[in-house]
Amino acid sequence: MSSSKQPASTSFKAPDSSCLQLDEQGRLRHFLTTESLSKDVLTEIMDVAESFSTVSHQAVKKVPVLRGKTIVNLFFENSTRTRTTFELAAKRLSADVINLNIATSAAAKGESILDTIRNLEAMQADMFVVRHSDSGAAHFIARHVAPHVSVINAGDGRHAHPTQAMLDMFTIRRVKKEFTNVARSQIHALNILGAKEVRVIAPKTLLPSDVGSLGVHVYGDLRTGLDDVDVIIMLRLQRERMGGALLPSEREYFECFGLTQEKLAYAKPDAIVMHPGPINRGVEMDAAVADGPNSVILQQVTNGIAIRMAVMTLTMAHNRAGG
Amino acid sequence: MSSSKQPASTSFKAPDSSCLQLDEQGRLRHFLTTESLSKDVLTEIMDVAESFSTVSHQAVKKVPVLRGKTIVNLFFENSTRTRTTFELAAKRLSADVINLNIATSAAAKGESILDTIRNLEAMQADMFVVRHSDSGAAHFIARHVAPHVSVINAGDGRHAHPTQAMLDMFTIRRVKKEFTNVARSQIHALNILGAKEVRVIAPKTLLPSDVGSLGVHVYGDLRTGLDDVDVIIMLRLQRERMGGALLPSEREYFECFGLTQEKLAYAKPDAIVMHPGPINRGVEMDAAVADGPNSVILQQVTNGIAIRMAVMTLTMAHNRAGG
Amino acid sequence: MSSSKQPASTSFKAPDSSCLQLDEQGRLRHFLTTESLSKDVLTEIMDVAESFSTVSHQAVKKVPVLRGKTIVNLFFENSTRTRTTFELAAKRLSADVINLNIATSAAAKGESILDTIRNLEAMQADMFVVRHSDSGAAHFIARHVAPHVSVINAGDGRHAHPTQAMLDMFTIRRVKKEFTNVARSQIHALNILGAKEVRVIAPKTLLPSDVGSLGVHVYGDLRTGLDDVDVIIMLRLQRERMGGALLPSEREYFECFGLTQEKLAYAKPDAIVMHPGPINRGVEMDAAVADGPNSVILQQVTNGIAIRMAVMTLTMAHNRAGG
Repeated sequence: MSSSKQPASTSFKAPDSSCLQLDEQGRLRHFLTTESLSKDVLTEIMDVAESFSTVSHQAVKKVPVLRGKTIVNLFFENSTRTRTTFELAAKRLSADVINLNIATSAAAKGESILDTIRNLEAMQADMFVVRHSDSGAAHFIARHVAPHVSVINAGDGRHAHPTQAMLDMFTIRRVKKEFTNVARSQIHALNILGAKEVRVIAPKTLLPSDVGSLGVHVYGDLRTGLDDVDVIIMLRLQRERMGGALLPSEREYFECFGLTQEKLAYAKPDAIVMHPGPINRGVEMDAAVADGPNSVILQQVTNGIAIRMAVMTLTMAHNRAGG
Repeated sequence: MSSSKQPASTSFKAPDSSCLQLDEQGRLRHFLTTESLSKDVLTEIMDVAESFSTVSHQAVKKVPVLRGKTIVNLFFENSTRTRTTFELAAKRLSADVINLNIATSAAAKGESILDTIRNLEAMQADMFVVRHSDSGAAHFIARHVAPHVSVINAGDGRHAHPTQAMLDMFTIRRVKKEFTNVARSQIHALNILGAKEVRVIAPKTLLPSDVGSLGVHVYGDLRTGLDDVDVIIMLRLQRERMGGALLPSEREYFECFGLTQEKLAYAKPDAIVMHPGPINRGVEMDAAVADGPNSVILQQVTNGIAIRMAVMTLTMAHNRAGG
Repeated sequence: MSSSKQPASTSFKAPDSSCLQLDEQGRLRHFLTTESLSKDVLTEIMDVAESFSTVSHQAVKKVPVLRGKTIVNLFFENSTRTRTTFELAAKRLSADVINLNIATSAAAKGESILDTIRNLEAMQADMFVVRHSDSGAAHFIARHVAPHVSVINAGDGRHAHPTQAMLDMFTIRRVKKEFTNVARSQIHALNILGAKEVRVIAPKTLLPSDVGSLGVHVYGDLRTGLDDVDVIIMLRLQRERMGGALLPSEREYFECFGLTQEKLAYAKPDAIVMHPGPINRGVEMDAAVADGPNSVILQQVTNGIAIRMAVMTLTMAHNRAGG
């Protein structure tokens, strides 16, 4: 909404989110990353989501929790799917929703983002749901918003997508009751919540360089890695990176790392298969697995609405009280 | 919202809508076409529309009939005009509306549409209003949705646009009280509702090849065809098809088939003139007819809101009861 | 929504807004320009805005004043910022909002705009918020709407942007309590409201040719023009006009007409600095002024919501009573 002549002196610094997300009473004020949060906070999010998951099955799928609040979907990159889930969650909480798609140009950085934020705050926006291709964008906004405003990170590049992580955790808790061995995941949340063992199975070229510091076991072979696991969290393959130096062809990838029923048999019989969607059938997994009895992929979508309602409600608790 | 590697085995088959549209109690569950429905069902739609037509004239133009329901406008082709009428109808029923414009690409077919549908169902969407350029798309979706979801066809290519047909019928009923001779129409609905005689007036090149089986009288001359009729339903000319083999120039077309006051005089004095809009003045009819005393074109628009409210309400009756 | 074959005989004539904006009882029916309105009407707008300015600070930021009304944002040119403020204002009044972006083409003129208007009226729209690049577009629509419909001008080219003018006036009144000397402004509103002296400070190439008839004092030098003023209303520079015959480079412009703290010191110590946004920092003013203690730029944004709520409420008074 604004452009700036002077060069943006403010850049997206490496996030320092420990105290940024909580208020003085230790309550959630922003939701930017799962990384620095306590097990209590993550558990509270899932408990509130549990109570909201019944709302979406009532005849009137609406609660007046955030009635009269203004929630702005501030999307600096297009993601219809993610925007829809947040818009639905907000409407089921009776909030008013404004969708703003802002082209990511030189103008959508630093000072200029702050001008946009200041303007929307002056219109008494209560919450920004931020989607941006650059890591740290939501943190940057959270560091600069007015005291009454909450920020939710709806995905910032390769950095964090914490509501996705929490809906994965919530899905695991609802199906498995506890956090046990998993094959690959939103590792921070899993560690915080006490998973016994976290494994990463991937081609070496796709592993992050600091994988050694994450407290996980790394496997290069799918069958060995899946042996006796309870939960399998697939990641979405970025197909545009195919065929280059990092990845072989889709066919070769599927041969080695695609999940089939034959490979799934190495995991426990009641292992669950998760995926953030949209699925590339025949690349990440075959259709029989995606649509089969072990898949909880559509339950994840359902749980995602409840988790987003929970996060919106919790971060706005201070705002609801006083106004 | 999803893409699929494997070739779509599911294609849009020829619709088989007889039992698809009704539930076991014979109540309307989807609204895809007028073709296989009984006179009772079409009459009920118009009766409910009649009761809603007063809502849009009240100071508070809203009823809580679908409060807390989520209606998704799932538009695979752009139509601002149609989208607006459904969005308004849904909001006047107090539903929450999500607008989704999905580019029609290879990805927007078969399996991939199903992935989108599954995701939106998992978010507890209650109704899909489907617009697609391919015939049978709404039927395809209706065949695959969850039991609690209703599908309304908002136009699928040259196949069907049943709410347009019903608003035409509703307009005729309100003005003419009965279904008598008409010159051209949503022929199925007219036959079901008992029109005495249905005529088609068109250049031979625009007639469908199966026109003989439709139970209509075909005329190639406007003056003869209009002789003594009660209702004239104009169709919108696709101007992009002008100048090719099928159609002569706009000027020639207007000369032969354009409705003028001189030609209108062949019909009954109180004949009504209908058009789905937007009108090409000077091509399909001249301005004096479009804006003249016999025209009910704007009443059609008004009635279109009531008809869409009625169809949404009736198809959701099962959903309202239980949730 | 409609196209027309016949040449548009209706063009946007020079506005004749004196009686167009008021109903027979002298109440505001449309809001197209501040030009012909009385001091009483402008004062009433600000009084109602004053009462709404508390609404946006309540925990539930919503009043049921326009519940069940349909407000159409009819934007023939893109302006996310302006659209957002009207959408927010309408939602806080509990109205239903439909956003329509209509490409300004040959089709978006004269007869074709009327077809669109007629269609939306037939859907029982209650208000059009009109944005158009051509002067007089909102007047044109207001001259042709049905008796129950109100029109608000959300900017028509270089002609008028009356809600912006009123939010400026409202901001001045709230901070300064009275309308005293100002440096540059929505001159009509200022004159109506009784400002003692209005000055225009600008390069000669940017002055309108009829500036002599506006009852203002013209200055070519910023320091002299600012001497002892109470209110400074900056205008946004159209950067695309830079570098041509009219304007020198941005650097030269800033040198002569950019507001710095050194130049601001020529005004009264408690002078307020206003700007419609978005600001080009380092062109129209430097960041220290834009973000400094004299700036009321964000208060303008806040007041803009209240003003738009006030104008919507006042113009709809006749509609609320009867329906």
